[in-house]
Amino acid sequence: MERSILKFGGTSVSSLGKIKEIANYLKKRVEQGEQLVVVVSAMGKTTDQLLQQVSSITSTPNEQDLAVLLTTGEQQTISYLSIVLNDMAVKSKPLTGYQAGIETVGHHLKSKISRINNTLFEQLFETYNVLIVAGFQGFNTNNEITTLGRGGSDTTAIALAAAHECPCEIYTDVAGVYSTDPRIYPQAKRLDSVSYEEMMEMSALGAGVLVTRSVEIAKNYNIPIYLGKTLSDAKGTWIMSQTEMLEKKAVTGVALDKDMIHVTLNYPHYDTSLMDAAFINLEQEEINVDMISQIVNNEGLQLSFTMKDTEERQLHTIFFRLKQDYPSLYYKIENHFVKVSVIGSGMRDMTGVASKVFRTLIEADIPFYQVTTSEISISYVVDARNSEKAAHLLCERFEL
Amino acid sequence: MERSILKFGGTSVSSLGKIKEIANYLKKRVEQGEQLVVVVSAMGKTTDQLLQQVSSITSTPNEQDLAVLLTTGEQQTISYLSIVLNDMAVKSKPLTGYQAGIETVGHHLKSKISRINNTLFEQLFETYNVLIVAGFQGFNTNNEITTLGRGGSDTTAIALAAAHECPCEIYTDVAGVYSTDPRIYPQAKRLDSVSYEEMMEMSALGAGVLVTRSVEIAKNYNIPIYLGKTLSDAKGTWIMSQTEMLEKKAVTGVALDKDMIHVTLNYPHYDTSLMDAAFINLEQEEINVDMISQIVNNEGLQLSFTMKDTEERQLHTIFFRLKQDYPSLYYKIENHFVKVSVIGSGMRDMTGVASKVFRTLIEADIPFYQVTTSEISISYVVDARNSEKAAHLLCERFEL
Repeated sequence: MERSILKFGGTSVSSLGKIKEIANYLKKRVEQGEQLVVVVSAMGKTTDQLLQQVSSITSTPNEQDLAVLLTTGEQQTISYLSIVLNDMAVKSKPLTGYQAGIETVGHHLKSKISRINNTLFEQLFETYNVLIVAGFQGFNTNNEITTLGRGGSDTTAIALAAAHECPCEIYTDVAGVYSTDPRIYPQAKRLDSVSYEEMMEMSALGAGVLVTRSVEIAKNYNIPIYLGKTLSDAKGTWIMSQTEMLEKKAVTGVALDKDMIHVTLNYPHYDTSLMDAAFINLEQEEINVDMISQIVNNEGLQLSFTMKDTEERQLHTIFFRLKQDYPSLYYKIENHFVKVSVIGSGMRDMTGVASKVFRTLIEADIPFYQVTTSEISISYVVDARNSEKAAHLLCERFEL
Repeated sequence: MERSILKFGGTSVSSLGKIKEIANYLKKRVEQGEQLVVVVSAMGKTTDQLLQQVSSITSTPNEQDLAVLLTTGEQQTISYLSIVLNDMAVKSKPLTGYQAGIETVGHHLKSKISRINNTLFEQLFETYNVLIVAGFQGFNTNNEITTLGRGGSDTTAIALAAAHECPCEIYTDVAGVYSTDPRIYPQAKRLDSVSYEEMMEMSALGAGVLVTRSVEIAKNYNIPIYLGKTLSDAKGTWIMSQTEMLEKKAVTGVALDKDMIHVTLNYPHYDTSLMDAAFINLEQEEINVDMISQIVNNEGLQLSFTMKDTEERQLHTIFFRLKQDYPSLYYKIENHFVKVSVIGSGMRDMTGVASKVFRTLIEADIPFYQVTTSEISISYVVDARNSEKAAHLLCERFEL
């Protein structure tokens, strides 16, 4: 009997009405002879509402306690969906992370799946046609409830697909992966397929469809993922091994990572102890520095880096401290930058992509501040006001 | 180290503000050197709200699914209380029914506790000072989530007290047990102590403080229960073995069971097949008949019984069916009756209670329709309009 894993995100299950529509769809697939594992998120804004309640108690809730609280959101969704399905005479069973045998390791709120008991489902499918699993949650060796962190429900679905060696369909309110964000470039094309590597770069570079970690699991177990729009006939995107993809293009997408800040340090002479002190401080404050460049010349040292603007507050504290030890340190924090990335696994084999991007930006008079390249991507930091223009031009240039 | 089990009901934890007040109180007791197990219900009207959502889907939800849903209510309370306690530096851990090792048997929504793993808490108390257990829930041998039915959180607390051989304090918005409902007889006295037997009669006869089953567990394991008012200095009531009670009174309380109906069947001659058919039908419809009396004389058979009015609809169906086989059957269903019960374990040893009750009602011109007696109670069915008057007179007569 054919088995599939389907995942529906929070906006797809934001009301009982939507849950009923999904149940109708699942019923049709069961009637076509499928066995289904359905992973669901918490309904709509439930998780945010729970977090808001907690924030009225404390800004530093105990992580174990918070995991117990947050997992009630998904537990409610699995119950409602199962009530609807059983009421339609579709044999269905709701399973919490613990009941689904999802073992995890690590911090309570950022756990990683370590093992999945896959014999359990074989037994349950003797009685039930649909197993509904609460996404985002698991349990650890101390029998404590854990959550998987951001994008956790996708991870649940893909890990279950890996354990059961079947494809994974992930449904959201967007139909698949686009060459770039359609809100920025309306002519953006939906991609029929992307490779795991391309998808990972896109996720890491801010495309935000799937978290990198989820794609990594799919890649390791060679599980095809279908990204589609919930209850829509619109075609989605398959994420799969590159070798199985028919057509290879040099560039498949352009991703924008917004709200970057650009930091510049100047110091009259080259001093490694300053560099050390700066990076130790950044690490202690858990600030992720993205792109770094360093220039040493007659005028001294110039160090630049980019980072997300969410940690800007800590940055001021760090530099205030550094200035006490290095009074002649000069620093500048500039806001409103965007990282524009061009991604494509074909880049490996085709030359000239970097120079094409470079020329596109130069011709359009768009200055850029940092450049980094990986095997399948090139990223430029540009002023926010130029970012959409850059994305447009790059999409046109690479016919996306 | 002294260990206590405390239970707080839904109205006691209906807001984060109230949860904080309870946390302050628990903190004081921990500072006095106690180890605490705290059982909590769902916050305020949470369970009702979940049931309302379900009723918009179906009137016959799958019981397994519904248990998974309803248990999220208590799971949220344990999380919030633990977040508050840990934030106050009181080492606390939330436990769902499964995590607390509460094994159950029976229907998903009316399960009974079959076993409690009591070594678990010994290990946890090495690290934590407060263990917070979700009331009303457990799990069965199929690893399915179950609930314990009405009054389930009290049962959780008392069963945990039995397993750990320590006293159980149950806090609600009423201070202890009264000789009768203070809303009916404002001079009603709070009882310092009642025996398990008296409490069971009171529960069964509608006093509604604790369900009979909970008291039964306490009696079997000889666990003293303290019923008190949440966060109040007001004295409560101890429920304990009768042998440990200092003072014995013939009568300790008057209970009223409202919304009874009185059913009378008349048939021109004595026919056991009719009786059989009537009781088989009542059993099939799961109608609990309370008090039964039968008169056979020259005019034929007269059978009367009382029952709760919640099942009146089924009653009409039954009699409609019976009339087809027994056309000369005559039946009458009368509403608005109340069962007034006088309870006291001292009745066993003291005579004259029944005749005192009898005379009280006669003197006040209050007619009664059925009378039953047990070893420690006497119950009379009276018209609803006379019930409060009867309760008043009986409380005065027995100095309650």
